[in-house]
Amino acid sequence: MTRNLPVDAARIGADIEALAAITEPDRPWTRRAFSPLFLEGRAYVERRMRDAGLETRVDAAGNLIGRRAGRVSGKGTLMIGSHSDTVPDGGRFDGIAGLISALEVARTLTDKGIELDHDLEIIDFLAEEVSIFGVSCIGSRGMTGQRPAEWLAREADGRSLAEGIAEVGGNTELSEHRPDIKGFLELHIEQGTVLETEGRNVGIVTAISGITRIEIIVEGRADHAGTTRMDARADALVAASELVLDIRQAALSLSQSPRHFTATVGEFRIEPNAANVIPSKVRLLIDARAEMREDMDAFCFFVNETADRAAEKWGVTIAPPVRISDVPSTPCDEGILSILEHAADASGISHRRMASGAGHDTMWLANVAPAAMIFIPCKDGRSHSAEEWAETDDIALGASVLFEAVQTMDKDRA
Amino acid sequence: MTRNLPVDAARIGADIEALAAITEPDRPWTRRAFSPLFLEGRAYVERRMRDAGLETRVDAAGNLIGRRAGRVSGKGTLMIGSHSDTVPDGGRFDGIAGLISALEVARTLTDKGIELDHDLEIIDFLAEEVSIFGVSCIGSRGMTGQRPAEWLAREADGRSLAEGIAEVGGNTELSEHRPDIKGFLELHIEQGTVLETEGRNVGIVTAISGITRIEIIVEGRADHAGTTRMDARADALVAASELVLDIRQAALSLSQSPRHFTATVGEFRIEPNAANVIPSKVRLLIDARAEMREDMDAFCFFVNETADRAAEKWGVTIAPPVRISDVPSTPCDEGILSILEHAADASGISHRRMASGAGHDTMWLANVAPAAMIFIPCKDGRSHSAEEWAETDDIALGASVLFEAVQTMDKDRA
Repeated sequence: MTRNLPVDAARIGADIEALAAITEPDRPWTRRAFSPLFLEGRAYVERRMRDAGLETRVDAAGNLIGRRAGRVSGKGTLMIGSHSDTVPDGGRFDGIAGLISALEVARTLTDKGIELDHDLEIIDFLAEEVSIFGVSCIGSRGMTGQRPAEWLAREADGRSLAEGIAEVGGNTELSEHRPDIKGFLELHIEQGTVLETEGRNVGIVTAISGITRIEIIVEGRADHAGTTRMDARADALVAASELVLDIRQAALSLSQSPRHFTATVGEFRIEPNAANVIPSKVRLLIDARAEMREDMDAFCFFVNETADRAAEKWGVTIAPPVRISDVPSTPCDEGILSILEHAADASGISHRRMASGAGHDTMWLANVAPAAMIFIPCKDGRSHSAEEWAETDDIALGASVLFEAVQTMDKDRA
Repeated sequence: MTRNLPVDAARIGADIEALAAITEPDRPWTRRAFSPLFLEGRAYVERRMRDAGLETRVDAAGNLIGRRAGRVSGKGTLMIGSHSDTVPDGGRFDGIAGLISALEVARTLTDKGIELDHDLEIIDFLAEEVSIFGVSCIGSRGMTGQRPAEWLAREADGRSLAEGIAEVGGNTELSEHRPDIKGFLELHIEQGTVLETEGRNVGIVTAISGITRIEIIVEGRADHAGTTRMDARADALVAASELVLDIRQAALSLSQSPRHFTATVGEFRIEPNAANVIPSKVRLLIDARAEMREDMDAFCFFVNETADRAAEKWGVTIAPPVRISDVPSTPCDEGILSILEHAADASGISHRRMASGAGHDTMWLANVAPAAMIFIPCKDGRSHSAEEWAETDDIALGASVLFEAVQTMDKDRA
């Protein structure tokens, strides 16, 4: 890295390393929301926020916020940040890179004596990852009034989610209401290989793909594996195997457009799962992600068709596939996308527009305020694993775009 | 049924019904070896043996034997029987039909005042089904010196197999040695649909298929399901699904010869089995059954080839498939096969030769004495399930062949 960046890459790297050290020692890198280690991580972040002159608090939804007051009272808030929690055996950069970059933007503004008209808030959203309570984006949904009320009664490790939120300093008796947020930006590792493959510095995220989960249950007949003729079977595994291949083929075709599309059979369980019994049942779960709703509709139509075809071909029963969840895609704010592109261009930082295949807190923010994301490359697209890796210099490039964009938004936003 | 049979169908039916009543009440029909219910079932069988004038004992291997002394001392023993234990949620006929038919043969001989030169033994083998100790054919292997010594230390429900055998009246300090067995016959439900489909009364079993179990482990890469491009994945489930279809296709081809062949993927488990993670690992287990060794060799060769092909095609790693068990097929005694065919012909009972796809106690007996099996039809080929069903009249036809064959063997065997 020879470029002269406004932000301090070494400072970013040191903070990421310090947070990485706060991990379950025998399963790096694990710092799950609601755990004592999570609170330890937050204490570190809060200390660094204070070091940067930020005023810290935990909001009612359990988010840690560091605030830098703006020059013009009542002008509203620009918010930047991500999350500090990890999945089990997770990585050092997912969420953390964005949180520390946001902190670095605040530090750099102060170092350079730059005052903003808007208040600036650096945010560590509570429990972006699927937590012990079985749900994700708890803090961003809570802050934006999108956390289902029934979630609060969910239990894990002998306490309710409401109690869990109270333990981190939130208060579910109160509700957040943030009409002051004028813009939101999140930097995040790509978790894919597009930037790395193309050698681009940053991705300008146009949309966060919709996620549809489709459950298929295949029912065959549990006959004796040794005595039942090959041509007289109703083997649920054989039928389900064909579905897996057909689903992959359909997703591959859809993904060959410039629009983001993936489909994955991630859960797959057979019964009775006994060596000498023909499988009688398979439950499989498809995770499909589409940037454009029409692609998801086409895929779901295909899944229904192919399930019918497989049922007939293999003599098994397949109930109509069920969409057990169906979140449409979230477009990012076109105005902020332009700001990000200009910011990158001004610093000679290469970029491309792309959709996010993963869900992010930005999804929930985008429903209440103009929002967008910046992706930075990560090695081999790996994430949610100990091998997850992003170069500090790459993070610093993204943080520089964030730094420039925040200043433009400060002028730009009413 | 209009035929006038030597055996008493009603008596067979009543005994089968009486044994069926000895079941775990909430999961019919369950009477697992080593359970109190098993001992209750055996007490019933022993009582019925004594009613038939048989002298009863439990041998060192834990088998219940009812003996009818022959006319000529030292001429040896003809043995007929099967087993009274069931799998969990099993049926009323698997094993039981053969045991009660054997008992009926002894009763019919006595009713008709027929004396045999040989001793006749009716046997209820201990634990033919996979038992709580994880192994099967414990009694037939024990009686024939083929029970691995290390099995005795196996533990289940707080006792060793040696203790379990002692509880049913056996004694593993002693070993059985049965050079006196001059012939063995077992009647059993087919557990397939060949006889039913062809409308034949009995099957004359030429061989018990060999069983080879092959383990395959597919290793891919656990990437993010939403962000990893469809064309940049190493999805272990996709690769394994293709293997399942290829294995089925190969087995179907091999099964189209007159020789018995089946292959089934019965165990199949994926990791991490999480909705939003591309499957990184699949372990699958193939159960292959062949009447002829050359078919099994051809199949195993194919499996190796197709695993290599799938690994290359899908960018995953597949270690060479491992044969974790490999029992060759057991041919039945040609002399007894002819006797069975003549016995059936003489009574106008339709028959065909066929191989058994399932394992049976006969496998172990065939290694120490001339042995064969008689199959009778069962509804829809169902077995190891509550729906398992055989008509009493069909069992009686098989028992009649057994009755005739025993008398021929008595004259025929030295």
